[in-house]
Amino acid sequence: MHVLITGAAGMIGRKLVERLVRDGRLGDKPIARMTLQDIVEPTALTGAHFAVETRAGDLSLPGEAAALVAEKPDVIFHLAAVVSGEAEADFDKGYRVNLDGTRLLLEAIRARAYSPRVVYASSAAVFGAPFPEAISDDFHLTPLTSYGTAKAIGELLLADYTRRGFLDGIGLRFPTICVRPGKPNKAASGFFSGIIREPLAGEEAVLPVPDTTRHTHASPRAAVNFLIDAAMIDGAKVGPRRNLTMPGVSVTVAEQIEALRKIGGDRVVSRIKRKPDATVARIVGSWPERFDTRRARELGFAAETDFAEIIRIHVEDELQGKIAS
Amino acid sequence: MHVLITGAAGMIGRKLVERLVRDGRLGDKPIARMTLQDIVEPTALTGAHFAVETRAGDLSLPGEAAALVAEKPDVIFHLAAVVSGEAEADFDKGYRVNLDGTRLLLEAIRARAYSPRVVYASSAAVFGAPFPEAISDDFHLTPLTSYGTAKAIGELLLADYTRRGFLDGIGLRFPTICVRPGKPNKAASGFFSGIIREPLAGEEAVLPVPDTTRHTHASPRAAVNFLIDAAMIDGAKVGPRRNLTMPGVSVTVAEQIEALRKIGGDRVVSRIKRKPDATVARIVGSWPERFDTRRARELGFAAETDFAEIIRIHVEDELQGKIAS
Repeated sequence: MHVLITGAAGMIGRKLVERLVRDGRLGDKPIARMTLQDIVEPTALTGAHFAVETRAGDLSLPGEAAALVAEKPDVIFHLAAVVSGEAEADFDKGYRVNLDGTRLLLEAIRARAYSPRVVYASSAAVFGAPFPEAISDDFHLTPLTSYGTAKAIGELLLADYTRRGFLDGIGLRFPTICVRPGKPNKAASGFFSGIIREPLAGEEAVLPVPDTTRHTHASPRAAVNFLIDAAMIDGAKVGPRRNLTMPGVSVTVAEQIEALRKIGGDRVVSRIKRKPDATVARIVGSWPERFDTRRARELGFAAETDFAEIIRIHVEDELQGKIAS
Repeated sequence: MHVLITGAAGMIGRKLVERLVRDGRLGDKPIARMTLQDIVEPTALTGAHFAVETRAGDLSLPGEAAALVAEKPDVIFHLAAVVSGEAEADFDKGYRVNLDGTRLLLEAIRARAYSPRVVYASSAAVFGAPFPEAISDDFHLTPLTSYGTAKAIGELLLADYTRRGFLDGIGLRFPTICVRPGKPNKAASGFFSGIIREPLAGEEAVLPVPDTTRHTHASPRAAVNFLIDAAMIDGAKVGPRRNLTMPGVSVTVAEQIEALRKIGGDRVVSRIKRKPDATVARIVGSWPERFDTRRARELGFAAETDFAEIIRIHVEDELQGKIAS
């Protein structure tokens, strides 16, 4: 089996690659070859028992998508994207990468005429307020960002190309991934990971929103599971509606903090500094709080069931089990 | 006021042009100039008390959209599209005209940086079965045709370009327009008009579906009213969700026939020949039956309230009041 991953240098891309290298297979199919693409050269890998080639390139430039699918990869994970903040700040870049890049990839696949499984990373950003209490897969696409707009358009293209038989697509709307490893970033959602990651590492973290703020999270490990399960799922079982909201843990910030206390104790929790920020609170307040993900769960997609489990996975996968006391 | 109409040679386009020429104004604003665009040269007009220029061109070709908005038309009606059947038969042409044509027009407007009102003709084809009993504006975009996919993508682009302030868009999802004037066509929906139009003109018409088939209709006159009302509506009243399902009359085929009997009598009705066609019945069976159009109605959009009124409008506007007895 030949696997292609676009956006392989991103956080989820790297974790997916590590997992596939470790497993040596996708579901029950041995991997014979892997192609890793990103705008920057994906990190070289050690320990893979199959051929791995890396490729730095811009999917939105002519010829790039055709080169990637020239040898007909069996499964394509399309993760490459400009993130929300950047797509909002640079309209042209956002549409070029997130819309044109996706469409060029789908068109290149259509031109090769072989209908591979395409797993598309979409986002809960396809939904925009006002919301019902829990957002189901039937809820309208009303994005409030250019990032969400391009992701929603990608979902529509994926469904139509699948319906026409040009490819066999599955789109996954990820909840917020938490705990994100690495340095704090400037995303408005950054604090959801920051208030867990920094205190566990002995650093202070700023909480800019009220404790009552509710949000839905899944771990990076769950995100990788979603991708692998989507690669292997029987398309006939999914039916014509190919874009699915993935499950997650819906908690308030207060519940996040109590889960952190359970695992790290009071001293760790004391490193969270409340510093209300009206702008961040307003942005976050317009985001979905809960999703009705029955469809995805019935199809076998699973996330964590409580937030403490999400923290434990972070401690295990990123901190080698060590918490800064 | 300078008005631009793309797709001005189409059925709705021609009726909109006739109406604007007759009124000489759009709402309370006198029209000073009108630009009519289509892939074929729109018919020259007589009797306009303002400048009318016609332009044959393909919106999806470089430079065409820029030329159309070079002089900053105040209101743009974007009606140009490849119809459903053709977009399904010719994938590339459908996407080129319906998606690229729309995006190029929006981009050309953005490049002129003046934020005009853009009225976009969308379609109930953005929705796909399975449906709830009545489809509200909050229902998910799940098109089952490439035409519906491109229309849904146009809606998303229109909303995002409006949110960013590049233009001031209103998208209208039209129900089936009935009674369509002219010759029978090969659209699967053609019989909905045919079983009224042909008998009233003394011709036989084929009914390929059961009398219980339910569908939603609005007259060509109502469609023109929708467009004009959308051109004049206060965008602030509409809010960020810029795509609206237009009202219509939801009736069964049996109710259509009874309305025809009321207006034309038994002899006219006897010209309808039942000839069941499983393929047509299957296609039509996957279409929406009813819409919840409260939002549009609250904003002032109005259609006919019963099907007899739709027939009367046809007799008045197309048959000069004469029914073939």
